[in-house]
Amino acid sequence: MLPFRSLLVAGAFLLQTTAAQTFQRLGTCPTLGCIFPPDQQDFLAGQYFDIRLEVHAPVNGSEATNGKPDEKFTFTIGRAGKTAKSASEFFKINEPKLETWNFTWYEDLFAQDLHKPSVVNVASKAYRRVALYTPGEYVATLHYNGTTTTATWLVRDIAEVRKAKNVLLFIGDGMTTNMITAARLIAHKSVNGRYQSTMQMDQFPVLGHQMTHSIDSFITDSANSATALYTGHKSTVNALGVYADSSPDPFDDPKVETIAELFHRLHQGHVGIVSTAFLADATPAALTAHTRLRDEYGAVIDSFVHGIVNYTWTDWSGPDVIFGGGAENFCSPKNGGTTSYMSQDYYNVFKQGGYKVVMNHTALTAASNKDRLLGVFSVSNMAKWLDRNVYTHNVKGNKDSPDCSGKDATDQPGLKEMTLKAINVLEARSQDKGWFIMSEAASIDKQMHTLDYDRALGELLELDDTIKASIERLKELGCLENTLIIVTADHGHGFDVFGSVDTNYLNQHDDPRVKRKAVGTYQNSGLSQYINTGDLRYGDSNFPSNWDPRYTLAQGFSANPDHRENYQVHKNGPRLPATNITGYPKTEYFVNPKDNVNGFIINGTIPTSAAQGVHSLSDVPVFAMGPCQEIFGGVYNNIDVFYKMAECLGLSRKSPPKGIPGSHDKGGNWDKYGGGVGYHHYGESNPRYGKTN
Amino acid sequence: MLPFRSLLVAGAFLLQTTAAQTFQRLGTCPTLGCIFPPDQQDFLAGQYFDIRLEVHAPVNGSEATNGKPDEKFTFTIGRAGKTAKSASEFFKINEPKLETWNFTWYEDLFAQDLHKPSVVNVASKAYRRVALYTPGEYVATLHYNGTTTTATWLVRDIAEVRKAKNVLLFIGDGMTTNMITAARLIAHKSVNGRYQSTMQMDQFPVLGHQMTHSIDSFITDSANSATALYTGHKSTVNALGVYADSSPDPFDDPKVETIAELFHRLHQGHVGIVSTAFLADATPAALTAHTRLRDEYGAVIDSFVHGIVNYTWTDWSGPDVIFGGGAENFCSPKNGGTTSYMSQDYYNVFKQGGYKVVMNHTALTAASNKDRLLGVFSVSNMAKWLDRNVYTHNVKGNKDSPDCSGKDATDQPGLKEMTLKAINVLEARSQDKGWFIMSEAASIDKQMHTLDYDRALGELLELDDTIKASIERLKELGCLENTLIIVTADHGHGFDVFGSVDTNYLNQHDDPRVKRKAVGTYQNSGLSQYINTGDLRYGDSNFPSNWDPRYTLAQGFSANPDHRENYQVHKNGPRLPATNITGYPKTEYFVNPKDNVNGFIINGTIPTSAAQGVHSLSDVPVFAMGPCQEIFGGVYNNIDVFYKMAECLGLSRKSPPKGIPGSHDKGGNWDKYGGGVGYHHYGESNPRYGKTN
Repeated sequence: MLPFRSLLVAGAFLLQTTAAQTFQRLGTCPTLGCIFPPDQQDFLAGQYFDIRLEVHAPVNGSEATNGKPDEKFTFTIGRAGKTAKSASEFFKINEPKLETWNFTWYEDLFAQDLHKPSVVNVASKAYRRVALYTPGEYVATLHYNGTTTTATWLVRDIAEVRKAKNVLLFIGDGMTTNMITAARLIAHKSVNGRYQSTMQMDQFPVLGHQMTHSIDSFITDSANSATALYTGHKSTVNALGVYADSSPDPFDDPKVETIAELFHRLHQGHVGIVSTAFLADATPAALTAHTRLRDEYGAVIDSFVHGIVNYTWTDWSGPDVIFGGGAENFCSPKNGGTTSYMSQDYYNVFKQGGYKVVMNHTALTAASNKDRLLGVFSVSNMAKWLDRNVYTHNVKGNKDSPDCSGKDATDQPGLKEMTLKAINVLEARSQDKGWFIMSEAASIDKQMHTLDYDRALGELLELDDTIKASIERLKELGCLENTLIIVTADHGHGFDVFGSVDTNYLNQHDDPRVKRKAVGTYQNSGLSQYINTGDLRYGDSNFPSNWDPRYTLAQGFSANPDHRENYQVHKNGPRLPATNITGYPKTEYFVNPKDNVNGFIINGTIPTSAAQGVHSLSDVPVFAMGPCQEIFGGVYNNIDVFYKMAECLGLSRKSPPKGIPGSHDKGGNWDKYGGGVGYHHYGESNPRYGKTN
Repeated sequence: MLPFRSLLVAGAFLLQTTAAQTFQRLGTCPTLGCIFPPDQQDFLAGQYFDIRLEVHAPVNGSEATNGKPDEKFTFTIGRAGKTAKSASEFFKINEPKLETWNFTWYEDLFAQDLHKPSVVNVASKAYRRVALYTPGEYVATLHYNGTTTTATWLVRDIAEVRKAKNVLLFIGDGMTTNMITAARLIAHKSVNGRYQSTMQMDQFPVLGHQMTHSIDSFITDSANSATALYTGHKSTVNALGVYADSSPDPFDDPKVETIAELFHRLHQGHVGIVSTAFLADATPAALTAHTRLRDEYGAVIDSFVHGIVNYTWTDWSGPDVIFGGGAENFCSPKNGGTTSYMSQDYYNVFKQGGYKVVMNHTALTAASNKDRLLGVFSVSNMAKWLDRNVYTHNVKGNKDSPDCSGKDATDQPGLKEMTLKAINVLEARSQDKGWFIMSEAASIDKQMHTLDYDRALGELLELDDTIKASIERLKELGCLENTLIIVTADHGHGFDVFGSVDTNYLNQHDDPRVKRKAVGTYQNSGLSQYINTGDLRYGDSNFPSNWDPRYTLAQGFSANPDHRENYQVHKNGPRLPATNITGYPKTEYFVNPKDNVNGFIINGTIPTSAAQGVHSLSDVPVFAMGPCQEIFGGVYNNIDVFYKMAECLGLSRKSPPKGIPGSHDKGGNWDKYGGGVGYHHYGESNPRYGKTN
């Protein structure tokens, strides 16, 4: 969905004026001169980024001008209170060439209904791969049409000392405190209010909250929130590792260096990527991809192994391990894939890059810890914990084998097996360099989207089980003390539990108003029936022993498509709450007549073109343990998670590397890792970690 | 709603067996022998409590016996691993007399529909006002009918050292992290993702989460959650400061001593109670009242001034200040009140108790800080911030003058004015004893119940403004460093924001499916229009400058009555989302035809007998700053908030006071304050606080 990329429409016509804060010509650009990164952004000292400038000349609509953007615009930058210089002089790079294009947008819903777009002509320049080193404020000024737009930037003053050798970052996609509370309720036994055991997350010593909003909207998606967590720069919905400019090309947007790229460039740190999603999905993708559009799946997969190849950028040689689903972006189309980069077979591309490829749990377990590993275990998102462990008939018949043959992927690992293997390999391969592993429980979010609360909570419990097992494995390997473990989310869904449901009563009555009597609120919520005394099927792994008790949870959110609720587990696979109906447009969704047939209808609250629930505003929790844990307490912004990880890993560089005068070729003649003499290299100043680089 | 107190029904008949975890014969008593406090409870060393034992003999139903409870039951208690003694021997008190009664309950909804209750005969004893001192585990055993029920109790080993002179406890009733996020969004300006200011709560150094579940249900109400926060003992919905037994008398249930009572008894500490609710409401009430039923309003008001008079209990001489609404429980019925204790005029009763009475903001401000003050500012709950400050016509015509004359209460203070006055008075009067103030923003919850999101967020913002002003006032008075400030909630509602709403578009279309197009999700949520650049009407107090912008918030919860949403502020007073309809029973609620007339209908998810939303499961946040703040970080249970406050205030007593042999008369011959020689009295061991007691 690209509101800014509609076809060019000529002509002038009147449009209804709007406050221009919701439908926006371009996010972060309220005036006709745009600077990216925009005003109020923070930077890590030494972090690579691009600058883009745009001058807008609306042709029509509420901001109409003569339609001719000032191509002679100039751009200066300087330390606050000091003399500003032109960017080319400041960064000692060549002046980039002028670019021009146009785009259209709708000023509000009425304009959209009338198909009356506003047209904007643009003049632009992009300065590539610059960095700021000295901490403090900077003022960047765009001069155009006799006026200026100013952006104030802050390079944070972060110590260069490294305090953690490794970082293990768990992301529960879409996971809120409310969901953790519900997962605890169904999986942990409580006697007279005292829990006999709690979630592993509950036991972390440090608790924080992070704000998840986008740069230009208060609700976010997984792409730009991952960008914020990995780069310290917020962005626009759908964007990965870039600020969203208005150009038609989804790859030319101004980039920001990610924590994976920095860690590798500055420390030769090793990286692991683990997700239960298809691997081209936003949360894994944002570690290496830089594109305005998260659905450029082919380019995402290519970036994992090759990094950014069409621009001078950072130094990247691929992760040690990358595990997940999404075979459809690895198999070439002629071999059953959907879309792969340049239609190549990416299993082969990774093999050529030195990777061993595994495609099932058995092979994953057997693989050597000394090799770089690509593990793709299914087409699309991997199977859910509930289907792999309880309703196991559901893992058959999906034709999801990762060789794209149409067979079933019946031997899929879970998040735990993938994460434990990642830890084994990274520990074996990284030696004193340290490692950064991102492990994502992706289907908490995906199952919340389809209102499949049971499956979502099952994924959350699998995440908690994975955290517990990972801590044990780190202990066994002797690296727990050196590892900062963080558990957080990218954003939330507005989920909560509000009572219990007598499913016998609900099922036995027909009148929807009578069915609702089955919902027990307050004291009638009673006790959790998901966890019975004794007889835990899954050992001490803390999962419910019964997903189908008589009294279930009354749960849900306020943001819904039309749907029917009966508050009972879906035994035949993931839920589909809303569908199209014959005779109505495909853009219209209604209650799925086959879902929760004995339930009662709840009308939706989001557009009828939405088949699923949506993300919500709420701050999400951050749990931290390990070296440097203390700085993760309190309430802060999602970008602060990046700055805190960067501080713990010692990624700040407050002066340029020796021998760097400015821009250069990709095969360039400078200190490849941007290190130089005099930095507190990991190993140099901290004898605990052994020998120096 | 008393499922356990129905009329006696004789006879035996078959009933459908149930898992007995949701409809319960008696919460915390799964067997036929009941011990209160039950198994797995924690205690503060030296905290007064009652013990009650019940032996049940069901007459009919799924647990039918011969209907004769074993009246010869015995009860022993002892340190774990040591010899158990009879309770009378252990506590050196007289054996209480036997009590008998019976009660009825419904085993499930089907039984309730059939009006087929189960009858239970009971034999019982209650041991009054005992305490345990030595930390560690205790085993309490009830022997009956040749079998036993055992309860393991834990007296926590908490140091007796006092670290904080004062505690300022803010309770946002029903307030969750999600709501705080929404309040921040509408009241604080953000530029390109960076908030230019944040909530005062956001700036607290320590963050925790507390679990709010009841002792016998996973959803709680404000009564038993306040009990948990103030006593360290969870209880049953509707119960205040007691465990819920099965007797018909709501005042004979086994009590637990509250933090206000302990603080006064042990330190002669001064107490202040502030709430925007009617003062008999649960959250203020639970500081001094002890009753199975929160709606014993008269007794609650009496307990504020007199403490517990019908049992030997603690030492209580009234708070220094008590401010709030609820004049209907102070005025005698002949003077316009609804219900007051023994139909007395409680303004007079308080005056006789040495209180000055104030009834409006002017009088509150003018009152001396040296006097004890009763401030009652309205009938029922006090006016909302939004109506006092923005839609001010709504404070007229409510006939809510606290003199019960039927005039309007047009000069009401807000939470801020009441709390600042409380701080002034408590500081002036308490000298070196220290003070404990509880300040409750009650109508966050009350307005969430009626789906009036704007008013609820206004109350939350008023709470935040109050916290900010209180910190300033404490600084001015020179006692900020000595004051532990805690901000938390009692429970949540499942609220979140999921987008923005173009109210112009919604209002101008008729078809509900088209109206829903107005909801903008993800990037179409845009930016908050509640907070405009400049022109803040309320100075720097951080409230929205515009409650009625074109683009509002799409918000709500999953637990709803039938209602209509248009996502626009209610300008003519608090919302009424659901009502009765002519021709239908009063127990049935439908969409209020006069509410949000231009909105779209959303069917409810809770019983149709519910006119309002309900509480939810989620853990709630805890913000802490000041001496002893560090122990409030991480994830814990709501009872832990009590133990942490008790630790900070030095309320643990690990050995009995000198000269206490056991039970005694109310005018008794022991150390009145339970202190004795050898304790670390506040003042003795901490020279910072000046002279000793």
